[in-house]
Amino acid sequence: MRLLLIHSDNIKYIAQKKTPVAEEEVILEDSLDEALTVFCAVESVDEENIPYIISKTKEEILGTVEKLGVKNVMIYPYAHLSSDLSAPKTAIEVLKGIEEACKQDKSLNVRRAPFGWYKAFTLSCKGHPLSELSKTIVPEEEAEKTEKKN
Amino acid sequence: MRLLLIHSDNIKYIAQKKTPVAEEEVILEDSLDEALTVFCAVESVDEENIPYIISKTKEEILGTVEKLGVKNVMIYPYAHLSSDLSAPKTAIEVLKGIEEACKQDKSLNVRRAPFGWYKAFTLSCKGHPLSELSKTIVPEEEAEKTEKKN
Ligand SMILES: [Mg+2]
Repeated sequence: MRLLLIHSDNIKYIAQKKTPVAEEEVILEDSLDEALTVFCAVESVDEENIPYIISKTKEEILGTVEKLGVKNVMIYPYAHLSSDLSAPKTAIEVLKGIEEACKQDKSLNVRRAPFGWYKAFTLSCKGHPLSELSKTIVPEEEAEKTEKKN
Repeated sequence: MRLLLIHSDNIKYIAQKKTPVAEEEVILEDSLDEALTVFCAVESVDEENIPYIISKTKEEILGTVEKLGVKNVMIYPYAHLSSDLSAPKTAIEVLKGIEEACKQDKSLNVRRAPFGWYKAFTLSCKGHPLSELSKTIVPEEEAEKTEKKN
């Protein structure tokens, strides 16, 4: 799982067109202010332990929203973060799993942009030192690494 | 070199704070409408052949702006695209090289966001099927691969 977490003044998307792997029954348009935008790329290695990936991603999101004092979360599939993607079916399962896991925290307002759609989006990144964080999560706990960069 | 190219209604940034590797003498704030935003992460392997990386990245940018009919280009350093970055000094050399190379095309309006600064930014992605493209360029021509994803 490749994650790019962005502390956003606003994140907005409008689904425009299906790809061949488009998820059905989705929210075609949504917007959040003062949010953590969570760009996610589910990777092929994640298929080895889906519950672990969901759980560690949830942990990462909850830890970050607490640090930032944010209550709104937008989970946003972003295939371009990885060159070794999972099957689309797995990606949808993982993304829905992350959404449900985060929603267990009733203090959060959690949304999820649809997988497999071409989407127009607008994103505003706040730009403070903690406003952008990337992370790679893999099934083996030992191999996990945090990447903080400029 | 990891590239993420986004056909943007608008890209705007405001540099907020230096990191320890901040480039000097920079444009602290800029904005372009109807632009190709070129997020770049210069990787350690790129140090093996910097002129090749600059040349292939220029080629990729020029090919994409031609396809999209775009005249404005924003080169934007984005470390989060890679987990194996080059030295900062190399990154600055490569980014400046790409800027200069693209500016040789006098029909283009080329800008470059500063390396090594925390920046607030706002980006609008158009969302049509060709509006997002990622690409990895490595010094060995054989290993180059284009990644088009949903
Ligand atoms: Mg427009």
